Amino acid sequence: MSVTAAKGFTAAGIAAGIKENGGADLALVVNNGPNRAAAGVFTANRVKAAPVLWSQQVLKGGRVSAVVLNSGGANACTGAPGFQDTHATAEKAAEVLGDGHSAGEIAVASTGLIGERLPMEAVLSGVGTAAGALSAHGGEKAAIAIKTTDTVHKTAVVESPAGWTVGGMAKGAGMLAPSLATMLVVLTTDADLASPALDEALRSATRTTFERIDSDGCLSTNDTVLLLGSGASGVVPDAAEFAEAVRAVCDDLGRQIVRDAEGASKDIRVEVVGAASEADAEEVGRSIARNNLLKCAVHGEDPNWGRVLSAIGTTSAAFEPDQLNVSINGVQVCRGGAVGEDRDKVDMRFREVRITADLSAGTESAVIWTNDLTADYVHENSAYSS
Amino acid sequence: MSVTAAKGFTAAGIAAGIKENGGADLALVVNNGPNRAAAGVFTANRVKAAPVLWSQQVLKGGRVSAVVLNSGGANACTGAPGFQDTHATAEKAAEVLGDGHSAGEIAVASTGLIGERLPMEAVLSGVGTAAGALSAHGGEKAAIAIKTTDTVHKTAVVESPAGWTVGGMAKGAGMLAPSLATMLVVLTTDADLASPALDEALRSATRTTFERIDSDGCLSTNDTVLLLGSGASGVVPDAAEFAEAVRAVCDDLGRQIVRDAEGASKDIRVEVVGAASEADAEEVGRSIARNNLLKCAVHGEDPNWGRVLSAIGTTSAAFEPDQLNVSINGVQVCRGGAVGEDRDKVDMRFREVRITADLSAGTESAVIWTNDLTADYVHENSAYSS
Repeated sequence: MSVTAAKGFTAAGIAAGIKENGGADLALVVNNGPNRAAAGVFTANRVKAAPVLWSQQVLKGGRVSAVVLNSGGANACTGAPGFQDTHATAEKAAEVLGDGHSAGEIAVASTGLIGERLPMEAVLSGVGTAAGALSAHGGEKAAIAIKTTDTVHKTAVVESPAGWTVGGMAKGAGMLAPSLATMLVVLTTDADLASPALDEALRSATRTTFERIDSDGCLSTNDTVLLLGSGASGVVPDAAEFAEAVRAVCDDLGRQIVRDAEGASKDIRVEVVGAASEADAEEVGRSIARNNLLKCAVHGEDPNWGRVLSAIGTTSAAFEPDQLNVSINGVQVCRGGAVGEDRDKVDMRFREVRITADLSAGTESAVIWTNDLTADYVHENSAYSS
Repeated sequence: MSVTAAKGFTAAGIAAGIKENGGADLALVVNNGPNRAAAGVFTANRVKAAPVLWSQQVLKGGRVSAVVLNSGGANACTGAPGFQDTHATAEKAAEVLGDGHSAGEIAVASTGLIGERLPMEAVLSGVGTAAGALSAHGGEKAAIAIKTTDTVHKTAVVESPAGWTVGGMAKGAGMLAPSLATMLVVLTTDADLASPALDEALRSATRTTFERIDSDGCLSTNDTVLLLGSGASGVVPDAAEFAEAVRAVCDDLGRQIVRDAEGASKDIRVEVVGAASEADAEEVGRSIARNNLLKCAVHGEDPNWGRVLSAIGTTSAAFEPDQLNVSINGVQVCRGGAVGEDRDKVDMRFREVRITADLSAGTESAVIWTNDLTADYVHENSAYSS
């Protein structure tokens, strides 16, 4: 499972002493080849954490031999000393991994509180400990070590009948652009593909998966999604089948992240149909998904479709107000911009809530996943850094 | 006080039976002249309530003789029948007010739940009752009748030594673009000015007051701000002094709205300085003010400046990440994009919290007022329509 499901990878997850509670907090994933192809997608936030700046540089070379990930600290907004800390982490990993590894090919990812330096003594000795614990069965432990406010660890695997595998792990409680705790994802594959092909599959997959989950509208400084290719299966995959496998793993992990979102009690699937363009559909879906009032209403199991229309009205998408239709869990409560079926028919007792907004302006569509806004979210995020 | 502070106006506030709890829910404001000049600013939401569509049409004529306002129902997303209800309300007001009034010069404003028709029997008989209760001291009662989730009614007055007055009332728990309960504002003045001059003063005032308060980022379908001029003082004011008086009344009412925001325990003043343009400063201020994670942190009295930087990083404003400075309550906790003074020095016990973000990119600035995100907000908005 996880990042060691595909051949050619070893991983470890250990407690390095970065977290004050003594929990697992450092993961190492190593690509043993024969290939060391890699692709990466990073946060769009212009304030980027040191490990994001570092890893973006590493990815430019198109080769990644290992990834060091830590929870317990984001190493964001830490200036030049924070960047030096990331660099030292990669150097240490190269040193302990030995032959065939150099710091310039080692990616680093961090998650936790912004604005504090990492305890580097713990990090560096942890890298050594993790290297000693590397195993072809270590994927699960690595997935556990990157958790912050996650209540469960998240892994997914797709195995192709053609003989190759895509597996991965994720942590996060929000979107690709999530919340306090960032989304970190490492995917691995033993399919035999060069970096440009991995990059194409990864970008195409994230565009309709991680980029369409939106827990709280807050874009992290640390989001990182990496795809490493070992080529160890010796199989060159069919491009379409491989792209679909990467998409499926991303979709699965993304859904797990939404399901585990901080304080959430409902998963909300916002589908926008009848849009003039996919961009319109996505803009409208995101506006609905980010509406705090609607998210509170869903928490209260209240089919308050007026808040859906109000959210649609703030977008620049093509639509006429009197041609909007909204269904909640299959009941068309708003028809032609006004009252439709009886709202009392809507059953919202279950965790998944489906909202469909029909713009009556075309044939394009998009799905955004989000969650409800709860008092638990407020409690969890009021007390995080103190 | 309120809308009857200026000469030439009468008002009333009564319980018409629109609200199920029997509270005051209908207000009438009448301009007895000699002028009936008027200006209006309405929600930017493309899904507009029937009374907004109606009043925009009335304002095109540049003359308003009366305003009917109701709480207990927004009359939004009610289709053609809802628009006919608004029309009927204006017709009824013209009928009961008699000589010199016509429906086409009577504005209507509504606030409450979206997507339900108003109980028109109650509304129409209420208009008659309100007309019988009109008084030159009725401003206070009118302000009370437009409350929804407001815990206090909101009025403000500026008297010029030159002999004219600007007064007003407001209801709302959010921004000019607020929340479930909409912002409705009626300002009155006895200064002798024609509609274009009122319009200029009103637009200039709302741009830096109501448009810079942002409680929860949710734009209402019903927001309405009206300025009525009776000319009853007989004084033509100095343009700059009048503009400043209108701005001061809007600023005062806007602050009262933020202070009364749903569930809020903190008023947050976000000031952006050192911006390359005022638009940049406003974009950054709004991004900070809308960040749920930061709003939770302020609720928890946690000077979590990393969330400020994270919010700035999502904007398109001109800045360099390593030149950002952030102060919270006067303590510069972030300097040059990294750790500044000790965060333990920040005292956040008081209701007002001041966040200053310095972009180090120019000399422009803007102030946005918002509030914290609390479990009470979630509770209030989970249970609203049920």
